Amino acid sequence: MTYRVGIIGGTGYTGSELSRILCRHPDVELAALTSRANAGTKVTKINTFLKGYTDIEFTEKISDTKDLDFVMVATPRGVAMNEVPALREQGIKCIDLSGDYRLHDPAVYEKWYGTPMTDVEGLGESVFGLPELFRDRIRGAGLVANPGCYATSAILAIAPLMKSGLVHPDVFIDGKSGTSGAGMKPSERLHHPTCGESVIPYSVCNHRHQPEIDMAVGMFSGTVPDVMFVPHLIPIVRGIISSCYFRCKREVTQEEIDEVYEKQYGAERFVDYVASPSIRDVVGSNHAQVGSKAMGDRIVAFGVLDNLVKGASGQAVQNMNLMLGLDEAAGLDFPGLGV
Amino acid sequence: MTYRVGIIGGTGYTGSELSRILCRHPDVELAALTSRANAGTKVTKINTFLKGYTDIEFTEKISDTKDLDFVMVATPRGVAMNEVPALREQGIKCIDLSGDYRLHDPAVYEKWYGTPMTDVEGLGESVFGLPELFRDRIRGAGLVANPGCYATSAILAIAPLMKSGLVHPDVFIDGKSGTSGAGMKPSERLHHPTCGESVIPYSVCNHRHQPEIDMAVGMFSGTVPDVMFVPHLIPIVRGIISSCYFRCKREVTQEEIDEVYEKQYGAERFVDYVASPSIRDVVGSNHAQVGSKAMGDRIVAFGVLDNLVKGASGQAVQNMNLMLGLDEAAGLDFPGLGV
Amino acid sequence: MTYRVGIIGGTGYTGSELSRILCRHPDVELAALTSRANAGTKVTKINTFLKGYTDIEFTEKISDTKDLDFVMVATPRGVAMNEVPALREQGIKCIDLSGDYRLHDPAVYEKWYGTPMTDVEGLGESVFGLPELFRDRIRGAGLVANPGCYATSAILAIAPLMKSGLVHPDVFIDGKSGTSGAGMKPSERLHHPTCGESVIPYSVCNHRHQPEIDMAVGMFSGTVPDVMFVPHLIPIVRGIISSCYFRCKREVTQEEIDEVYEKQYGAERFVDYVASPSIRDVVGSNHAQVGSKAMGDRIVAFGVLDNLVKGASGQAVQNMNLMLGLDEAAGLDFPGLGV
Amino acid sequence: MTYRVGIIGGTGYTGSELSRILCRHPDVELAALTSRANAGTKVTKINTFLKGYTDIEFTEKISDTKDLDFVMVATPRGVAMNEVPALREQGIKCIDLSGDYRLHDPAVYEKWYGTPMTDVEGLGESVFGLPELFRDRIRGAGLVANPGCYATSAILAIAPLMKSGLVHPDVFIDGKSGTSGAGMKPSERLHHPTCGESVIPYSVCNHRHQPEIDMAVGMFSGTVPDVMFVPHLIPIVRGIISSCYFRCKREVTQEEIDEVYEKQYGAERFVDYVASPSIRDVVGSNHAQVGSKAMGDRIVAFGVLDNLVKGASGQAVQNMNLMLGLDEAAGLDFPGLGV
Repeated sequence: MTYRVGIIGGTGYTGSELSRILCRHPDVELAALTSRANAGTKVTKINTFLKGYTDIEFTEKISDTKDLDFVMVATPRGVAMNEVPALREQGIKCIDLSGDYRLHDPAVYEKWYGTPMTDVEGLGESVFGLPELFRDRIRGAGLVANPGCYATSAILAIAPLMKSGLVHPDVFIDGKSGTSGAGMKPSERLHHPTCGESVIPYSVCNHRHQPEIDMAVGMFSGTVPDVMFVPHLIPIVRGIISSCYFRCKREVTQEEIDEVYEKQYGAERFVDYVASPSIRDVVGSNHAQVGSKAMGDRIVAFGVLDNLVKGASGQAVQNMNLMLGLDEAAGLDFPGLGV
Repeated sequence: MTYRVGIIGGTGYTGSELSRILCRHPDVELAALTSRANAGTKVTKINTFLKGYTDIEFTEKISDTKDLDFVMVATPRGVAMNEVPALREQGIKCIDLSGDYRLHDPAVYEKWYGTPMTDVEGLGESVFGLPELFRDRIRGAGLVANPGCYATSAILAIAPLMKSGLVHPDVFIDGKSGTSGAGMKPSERLHHPTCGESVIPYSVCNHRHQPEIDMAVGMFSGTVPDVMFVPHLIPIVRGIISSCYFRCKREVTQEEIDEVYEKQYGAERFVDYVASPSIRDVVGSNHAQVGSKAMGDRIVAFGVLDNLVKGASGQAVQNMNLMLGLDEAAGLDFPGLGV
Repeated sequence: MTYRVGIIGGTGYTGSELSRILCRHPDVELAALTSRANAGTKVTKINTFLKGYTDIEFTEKISDTKDLDFVMVATPRGVAMNEVPALREQGIKCIDLSGDYRLHDPAVYEKWYGTPMTDVEGLGESVFGLPELFRDRIRGAGLVANPGCYATSAILAIAPLMKSGLVHPDVFIDGKSGTSGAGMKPSERLHHPTCGESVIPYSVCNHRHQPEIDMAVGMFSGTVPDVMFVPHLIPIVRGIISSCYFRCKREVTQEEIDEVYEKQYGAERFVDYVASPSIRDVVGSNHAQVGSKAMGDRIVAFGVLDNLVKGASGQAVQNMNLMLGLDEAAGLDFPGLGV
Repeated sequence: MTYRVGIIGGTGYTGSELSRILCRHPDVELAALTSRANAGTKVTKINTFLKGYTDIEFTEKISDTKDLDFVMVATPRGVAMNEVPALREQGIKCIDLSGDYRLHDPAVYEKWYGTPMTDVEGLGESVFGLPELFRDRIRGAGLVANPGCYATSAILAIAPLMKSGLVHPDVFIDGKSGTSGAGMKPSERLHHPTCGESVIPYSVCNHRHQPEIDMAVGMFSGTVPDVMFVPHLIPIVRGIISSCYFRCKREVTQEEIDEVYEKQYGAERFVDYVASPSIRDVVGSNHAQVGSKAMGDRIVAFGVLDNLVKGASGQAVQNMNLMLGLDEAAGLDFPGLGV
């Protein structure tokens, strides 16, 4: 069976990346891409790199396309909570790649995003879409909240240690992201002369991915989370590395923490625990890498991924595969660029 | 049927890129990868991005592996001419990605490479592997010389105009390449502090891709070639753009030259003639783009590609597909990264 | 004597770079910086890198500051032609860093800039400010039009050959510029994800620096200029290299053209003729480098500089020094970064 | 009086940067530059960016030049301890830019560097050359150990908080350095295709700048140091940002820590405490910036500088100025590039 999938928000970076993956997915027909500004225009006229891979035109609304089996929302936050309820009512499974459904507590959403979360019912059924940690719940879900790119990289590095009980919950996360993570809208910070030969800390201690990480740390540590998250903009286009710093409850050995991670990720297709995590190994792919180093009663752990693939659209497809009962790796079985 | 393919020189950038493509090729088994330094080691220990995609070990010699159907040589020049004769004798089809078999005239080889071309018999049967221009000859070939990355980008932009008779043969080529084109061996020029915030002209008028371009210009213009080729190193990892400058025999219109290129490439899967060629559109893929602009009796034409894919390993697989009678796009049907 | 210098447009890249140079100039007091948006604010609040080097505040209009001896206009084009007449009437010498006064023929200005040049009288007295070629006229000038960054790099490479009579006037210029040349306004092209790992041809054959180059080629060749200028955006912050391609009237030797350039630039302080021109050698300084290579009856010549210094603000200070009878290198005697 | 200064190791990045600064220093004559490989060659033949600023030739040994007043050692570690004793015996003041004299305890040197520190006497008189923290001791010193680039950036951010008693000594340092910090020798990690689009953690918990930071933390906290230092290679040429993470002994306010830093650096010429530290503000200059953010009982503090200037050669000149009784800013009074 071929599933008809639609994307709300087809011109942004995550929407384009979804198109790039779905147009080659063996079990999917890329059936709809919305763009108000470009409705009626061939997708390949805007996303020229898709020429030869799709023939459809942008539509204005997702409801312009009939018989969709699945919808991805790849817009800025605030849109999904208005679009998803009608889709869910029709029984269409959905993934939201924005922040709307990620935070279980609507009050936390309002605190970090400044406006209320209006689809509280949807929030109730939504599952946080990090397959390596919540696979079973994702399988049964009708609505998945796809995690943020920083959050994915950090949580993959943090969760196993938190679950192990070896570390205190007061982790420091030094996030380092390529520029595509900030979206396609030009701004002073992303202007090449500003960022092209610099490293820029931004949203220090108030980045919107922080409450997702708090939530995960809380879940896996069983305590009140106590995270300090400091993102830095790096002059690369794709790629994130989150360096996470832990204090342990006692001295630990490298072997102990290797075992913790191996146990968590040894059987995973898309997360590797490696000696030297490398952005080049994962760029262009849905693979993530985690590494760590123990030093006395301290640990640094790294989470590395392509922010547009495992940090966004690839992970969304991985979630979709689970939700539709497909092979989890369908459409995603390609290695990173390496160089 | 699945073809067993071996690669001589499995650790360099083109050998790794071949592995990356072939490990997912539907009709191919990646059966051998040679590396003297790493014989006996798992390929994924060195090329970590291939983990999950292949399980083989490096071998010392290509003859260590039996029953190969096809061999790619991805070494520095000078190796293929020693390896290919024995393989051809066993009836194994070969592609050489180095410069050994590219120049029809052994004297030209010796002039540019400094040592003699010793397999003159092989040279006699070898075909220059640019599918969009020599597809029929490649189909029947037992030995294909895969063109250089600069040469591919320039010839794709130049050949149609030369064939049209509109332009003089005295073309200027301003080549601009990412750093991966120069291979994996560290050197002063490729040291990041040297090249990371600079543009460096190098091998001015004496780059080894020049005679390939000369040969092609001569073929398509029917005259003595008269090319000036000036390569520049650009601080990007993957990607080439060759800007080619022509004088016309008379004033030409944009429509005329658009027609020339459309006629040549309109039906091609991997070469698009576009208004604004873009490295980001093709990076990570086997697609190339060509663009042009007429101004009175002058033309500039651009050839754009990923130097490791359409400029090397992807094109080699495209040639292999033709030589084996497979779908020309098998294993290569993925779009560029876009961003 | 200390000259009181004002800058109209103090927050853009060229205005900031002027401030950076003038705040250390031994014979100058940086007396005024205008910025409508920031009037009343300390300059160091916006241009934080100037902390410790100036204490002045931005003013709204240049006329807010009395007793200025010299004014630089560092705004987008279209402003200088409105500001300069009143300043000149008061006997204040001026340099315009925008395009307003560069083109001798008002009709050419209107053709390329789309609106009329309204200060035709000023145009009559203005001198094209390339000191190495027009030093004597600059010395006596009351109004200097500072050349564009591309134009400076190209004309330095082209003029000596044109004057020598060795080459045809149909030069091709392949310009490659860092991103700061395009100014501080964010745009899609200068968005890091767009340009950070790419090379982007833009304004192909219709860049506004072309008529300046035409003018210079015409002047030095004594013929109708016939230039094709194709700029490319390169992912570096500062630096330009213009690669200029020539056909000669006969075969030339390297010695001949070396002599041509040595004769022109041998005694110059800020232009060196070198074997391998290097952006890193000149970045951060007012130095330019020119190089060339002969091949039969063809020549490639390179012009290299920091687009914000020798390509804009440094050259303006060099011109100012000449106009005020100061040491031409005053305030400019610092070498490039090297690495 | 003009002091005759010599540099041992004149071709490396720090030696070249020293030359660049000293050739314009108002009180100094750049009298000697050693380079075994280039003895007898004009300095400007190798360091072409110095053309017009010095006329001297490289010499083989520092003793080839007579009447030196001051010597800088800018070689890899292990050389200074052999050269300095003879120079000190002649009463020549010295600064060592390598690691030889930085660690007060020879056993710690041997542990981190693998070979013994043989000039224990010299070690006894050497002063750690961070002027903002040890100015008085530097003034009287005959031998100064210039700190490492990472160490300078981290210690500037850490010392005031340690002295304040507000924080625990278990700081995490996430260092991010441009590539010029690793020196001019090509290597796999600094090969552009490896690092140009990546962020690479390296020497995790065993970088040689760690013991310097330990030493400083110990000094200012009065406790056993407990630092975890994790350096990351960033694809920029110049610039370091060290992000330092602290746990406080109680909740602190932003005002409290602002006051701590203002008190420390308010009167400093070369260290600014700012809201948003920026690499672009300091690149090309001897200025450093420190910033910080409090969040409950946690603090992140940033130390930012140009690794070749305030992180190496500029700081060495600042130290030399102090040792010679000159204006501390002599030869260093130029702002950062800004863009």
